[in-house]
Amino acid sequence: MTNAFTTSGILGGLLSDPEIAAEFGASAFCTRMLEFEAAWTQALASCGVVTAQEANTALAAIKGFSADNLGQGSDRDGIPVPVLVAALKSGLKDGAARAVHTGATSQDVIDTALILTCLSVLERLTDRMTRVVAGLDAVLDRYGDAPLQARTRMQAALPATVGLRVAAWRRPLADRLSQTASVRADLAVAQIGGPIGIRETPHPHVADCAAMVAETLGLSLGPVWHADRSRVVAFGHWLSLVAGSLGKIGQDVALMAQQGIDEITLSGGGGSSAMVHKQNPVAAEMLVALARFVAAQQGILGQALVHEQERSGAAWALEWLTLPAMAEATGAALNHAERLIDSIKRIGAPE
Amino acid sequence: MTNAFTTSGILGGLLSDPEIAAEFGASAFCTRMLEFEAAWTQALASCGVVTAQEANTALAAIKGFSADNLGQGSDRDGIPVPVLVAALKSGLKDGAARAVHTGATSQDVIDTALILTCLSVLERLTDRMTRVVAGLDAVLDRYGDAPLQARTRMQAALPATVGLRVAAWRRPLADRLSQTASVRADLAVAQIGGPIGIRETPHPHVADCAAMVAETLGLSLGPVWHADRSRVVAFGHWLSLVAGSLGKIGQDVALMAQQGIDEITLSGGGGSSAMVHKQNPVAAEMLVALARFVAAQQGILGQALVHEQERSGAAWALEWLTLPAMAEATGAALNHAERLIDSIKRIGAPE
Amino acid sequence: MTNAFTTSGILGGLLSDPEIAAEFGASAFCTRMLEFEAAWTQALASCGVVTAQEANTALAAIKGFSADNLGQGSDRDGIPVPVLVAALKSGLKDGAARAVHTGATSQDVIDTALILTCLSVLERLTDRMTRVVAGLDAVLDRYGDAPLQARTRMQAALPATVGLRVAAWRRPLADRLSQTASVRADLAVAQIGGPIGIRETPHPHVADCAAMVAETLGLSLGPVWHADRSRVVAFGHWLSLVAGSLGKIGQDVALMAQQGIDEITLSGGGGSSAMVHKQNPVAAEMLVALARFVAAQQGILGQALVHEQERSGAAWALEWLTLPAMAEATGAALNHAERLIDSIKRIGAPE
Amino acid sequence: MTNAFTTSGILGGLLSDPEIAAEFGASAFCTRMLEFEAAWTQALASCGVVTAQEANTALAAIKGFSADNLGQGSDRDGIPVPVLVAALKSGLKDGAARAVHTGATSQDVIDTALILTCLSVLERLTDRMTRVVAGLDAVLDRYGDAPLQARTRMQAALPATVGLRVAAWRRPLADRLSQTASVRADLAVAQIGGPIGIRETPHPHVADCAAMVAETLGLSLGPVWHADRSRVVAFGHWLSLVAGSLGKIGQDVALMAQQGIDEITLSGGGGSSAMVHKQNPVAAEMLVALARFVAAQQGILGQALVHEQERSGAAWALEWLTLPAMAEATGAALNHAERLIDSIKRIGAPE
Repeated sequence: MTNAFTTSGILGGLLSDPEIAAEFGASAFCTRMLEFEAAWTQALASCGVVTAQEANTALAAIKGFSADNLGQGSDRDGIPVPVLVAALKSGLKDGAARAVHTGATSQDVIDTALILTCLSVLERLTDRMTRVVAGLDAVLDRYGDAPLQARTRMQAALPATVGLRVAAWRRPLADRLSQTASVRADLAVAQIGGPIGIRETPHPHVADCAAMVAETLGLSLGPVWHADRSRVVAFGHWLSLVAGSLGKIGQDVALMAQQGIDEITLSGGGGSSAMVHKQNPVAAEMLVALARFVAAQQGILGQALVHEQERSGAAWALEWLTLPAMAEATGAALNHAERLIDSIKRIGAPE
Repeated sequence: MTNAFTTSGILGGLLSDPEIAAEFGASAFCTRMLEFEAAWTQALASCGVVTAQEANTALAAIKGFSADNLGQGSDRDGIPVPVLVAALKSGLKDGAARAVHTGATSQDVIDTALILTCLSVLERLTDRMTRVVAGLDAVLDRYGDAPLQARTRMQAALPATVGLRVAAWRRPLADRLSQTASVRADLAVAQIGGPIGIRETPHPHVADCAAMVAETLGLSLGPVWHADRSRVVAFGHWLSLVAGSLGKIGQDVALMAQQGIDEITLSGGGGSSAMVHKQNPVAAEMLVALARFVAAQQGILGQALVHEQERSGAAWALEWLTLPAMAEATGAALNHAERLIDSIKRIGAPE
Repeated sequence: MTNAFTTSGILGGLLSDPEIAAEFGASAFCTRMLEFEAAWTQALASCGVVTAQEANTALAAIKGFSADNLGQGSDRDGIPVPVLVAALKSGLKDGAARAVHTGATSQDVIDTALILTCLSVLERLTDRMTRVVAGLDAVLDRYGDAPLQARTRMQAALPATVGLRVAAWRRPLADRLSQTASVRADLAVAQIGGPIGIRETPHPHVADCAAMVAETLGLSLGPVWHADRSRVVAFGHWLSLVAGSLGKIGQDVALMAQQGIDEITLSGGGGSSAMVHKQNPVAAEMLVALARFVAAQQGILGQALVHEQERSGAAWALEWLTLPAMAEATGAALNHAERLIDSIKRIGAPE
Repeated sequence: MTNAFTTSGILGGLLSDPEIAAEFGASAFCTRMLEFEAAWTQALASCGVVTAQEANTALAAIKGFSADNLGQGSDRDGIPVPVLVAALKSGLKDGAARAVHTGATSQDVIDTALILTCLSVLERLTDRMTRVVAGLDAVLDRYGDAPLQARTRMQAALPATVGLRVAAWRRPLADRLSQTASVRADLAVAQIGGPIGIRETPHPHVADCAAMVAETLGLSLGPVWHADRSRVVAFGHWLSLVAGSLGKIGQDVALMAQQGIDEITLSGGGGSSAMVHKQNPVAAEMLVALARFVAAQQGILGQALVHEQERSGAAWALEWLTLPAMAEATGAALNHAERLIDSIKRIGAPE
């Protein structure tokens, strides 16, 4: 769902992330759907369902396609694929038309394009996480031995060092990074099952095509998962862990920046329209809000597991309503975290 | 948070509503912030804080303002108001500059502009609700006496009529409409408290200015509510009731449209890329998804009540992350409901 | 759902409230179901469906009933009413048996008993809210003029008084209290519709019986709401507003109690097993946790609005899974708030 | 939080699971806390902090301990550990008293006991999952080749078999089972850090003690995770995947059991108090409700990641408020699933 307030420009990048938004945007998503269709056409030729010439004619149409009315198709069909396929086929004669999408179904295209999107998002986010961890390492190097009061249950506990606090910020992010390969492998599975999730209809080469398409797209091919949304929910879980870890940093920084506590000095904090002396820890506050937002969306995304029969329009739409926003919020949080850590001018017990 | 997937065009109006989005967009919101500032400037003159001439100079600047870098200000300050006020004052000399915003604070501007936005949204949504109720009335007129099997716990219960089912669709919407005046009155309260919520600083006329501004904007003025977010949460609750009532309609229609049940026939259902014979009840599915989405966001919006001290950046941002999306989702649901009801070609027990 | 960890005694009343729990417990709920059945039997006699003697025999059975196997009935039927009705009828001859439950349905009993429960809960909670407001009034009387730094966005803003902060704690609770009569009126509506929500079957006196039963139970009788769960969701909303307002108090107190801030001194804070010098603001922390818990449950309760057809077992169960826990959590929060406010030994800027 | 309505007996095992509840109950949890304390005492002796005789005296006290007022301690301290430790030490002389808990902190005890609880829960749940999968295998064996209409977006799609549908039920559960070892390894990590998460204070042997205690309890010992709650959140995620997979089964069965669809016949469905002919698919409905409940709780549990400083009472309590209920709801869902599958008398297209 749009949030015009956070994205129309008036709030800048406070609660948005254009780079991650672009991953889910019409242009990138259409490109990925076309990658699927091109791979499928090639596979149909390899399996002998169509001739090489028919496939080449179809590929030219796929390559030359420029979307303009996919939204109207979605309004009618609930998904942009039928109108996309119709547009690709328009102007193609019988054999070449048969070289487009034959044996695939809309969900194959959307789910597999979503996986490609998530993989690209994963790469961008882990790049940023690497930089955030490096930033924390620099803080540890420089200030790790500085004294800092440990606080438990909002109360002063025992004397400690900056290293204790910042290592606790770093650890969960480093843990997530160390699991990247396994997260990627769990995610990088094509979803191809044909109309109802059986790789046998409407032609006997659907299973072979599915295997070839997966390989072309750099994905593995396990059992059909059209109605098992665990994979998508698990990616949301990963996002919520990342955003949540950043939320802890934000909460700690906001507490450390209080006058009277004075355990951190930041450069370039936010100004006030009424109180010019103030320097508000804006990035820290946003980390808290974004963490709560992402965590809570996971409670909705998880409802998508109640995916009835062989395809649920309602449960599927819950994924679309939440996962892209969760990814972008996590991206925005990483942007804030990177800048926040760079802005630390001093950290540790007040002098 | 953006959801580029649902809003970049590829899904059309399936999960978005451009009209409601525009209410929260930069242009409309900036206009409402400027309405606040203009009213404030006039009030400052009326109270004698500035001269009429100073106020007129300031009003000309407010009227001629065109935003271009509010986002950059938000990036820095966490809100667009400081940069807006600075821009308005730039080029104004001392007295005229003092005629801008003096005694108000960023939160006054944002919260009051948000209230104006919500009131406009309320009007648009109730217009649509009125049309949906009228559509249901037409269905009741035409088909109310047609037989329909009542079903409880997903099982056939007793013979009944279409009237039983459709009256249950209509009632909660009509109830919400009958409460519109009271919802509007609860919502239409200006939030003006100055820097920390006391209408006494930084000049003795803040309370008078607040009263005048509220009147100019067509709002009432109760106690300061800068840190009491009940009003905003209550509007979210109203949205969730509306969207939830539509979700029930969608769920019922999707069940009635099943082959073997055949209790409703719709025109223009959604097509499938692989199965040309299919007519999917897309609008009904979206009603279910949007209802679940809005209801769940209320669980996040309610966290905004834990709004610490005199202003919480983190809790405040939770409102921005959820309420605009809830409003737009409810708007999209009303659009779907209106079309869905218009598309009923037959309703009742199969012949 | 049980939460054995919070309720089995090991956590005391930290996250539970035996008084509110008892309202939803088997004994109290069974009593309320029997009140419904007794009123129904009387109404059947008044309408002439059964004789006065048959009704008296049935009433004796209802009065003498002691539940012992309702749970087994629920295991089988999904609700305790069928087994309850069967038990009441066992031993009664034809006419007297007909004087039990004839024309009512399980949902009528459960929903109306739930309303009676909620009304009793409302009374208990508003009693406590009255005491909390009185406690805050005492704080205002004693410390209202004491200096306190106003803080916005976690930063020192401007000098203010304790009165500013504590009035902001008091106001939303007082607002809720001032709306009690209207909340009560909205809630106090019997839910009686017979098997499928038509007050015409299985005998022509169902509507008359419904009206009499409502009156006997001190409830009004509006349109049937068997499939419109707005009333239940709205009560959850009220609970979330109350708990959220208390969460703000808790968050503020936890921040004020920090060493270095020292704006509040509490008696009797929590001890630590490892650090004997510590005094943890346990009640304040619990207020925050309970507020977040209740607010978030509202996001699930709202899903109950997607209540398909004439009765949804799945959507209905979502109410049972959330509302009683929300009520108890709000009750526990009020208990904590009352004790917390009583424990204030000093509040205001450190000397 | 208690939910007295679902647990006081009136609803039987509909929305509760006594076996899983017992895992989180006072008796079992106290036993696990005492296991921790016993292991710690032994470790103190092994490290030479206390003598073997002092340890033996302490161990006798630990062994002979019977809790009675832990709840009162929690009321005061926010956790039961301080009062537990005080009770264990009462009656012990200096050296033996020092053999109890020295160098550990409350959070070490609670978190590690929670891990032991979760491991036991994991074992019970996977046992049940194994039986559910076996039940589905039996259905596949007997009915896998029976015809069944595939349905997508609530519409008839193409002819298929029971095998398509039931394999989609089985697969996510089998996937979760195949990951049990890795889930268990991720979970089975002791949380021991002493007062503030440094294994150096208050005596130099804390790290050695931690390693010994972990080994004694059958756990591994990684970095301290007192403020990194990813491990707990990840277990909640696993529960939500399991419950969600069962919710899909429930939703499908409820749809298949509709008159007019007639794709499944169940024995022993639920009765109605008003319509004796009805057989309600109660277990299927409960699976849907429990799946939605568990998924949504994950949205709250994830907020626990925003765990400020070295220990957050408020964020920690969010775990206690949600995880035990999620585990029990998942357990109840597995119970329902097992019975539901056993009750299938026929599945497939109507004859």
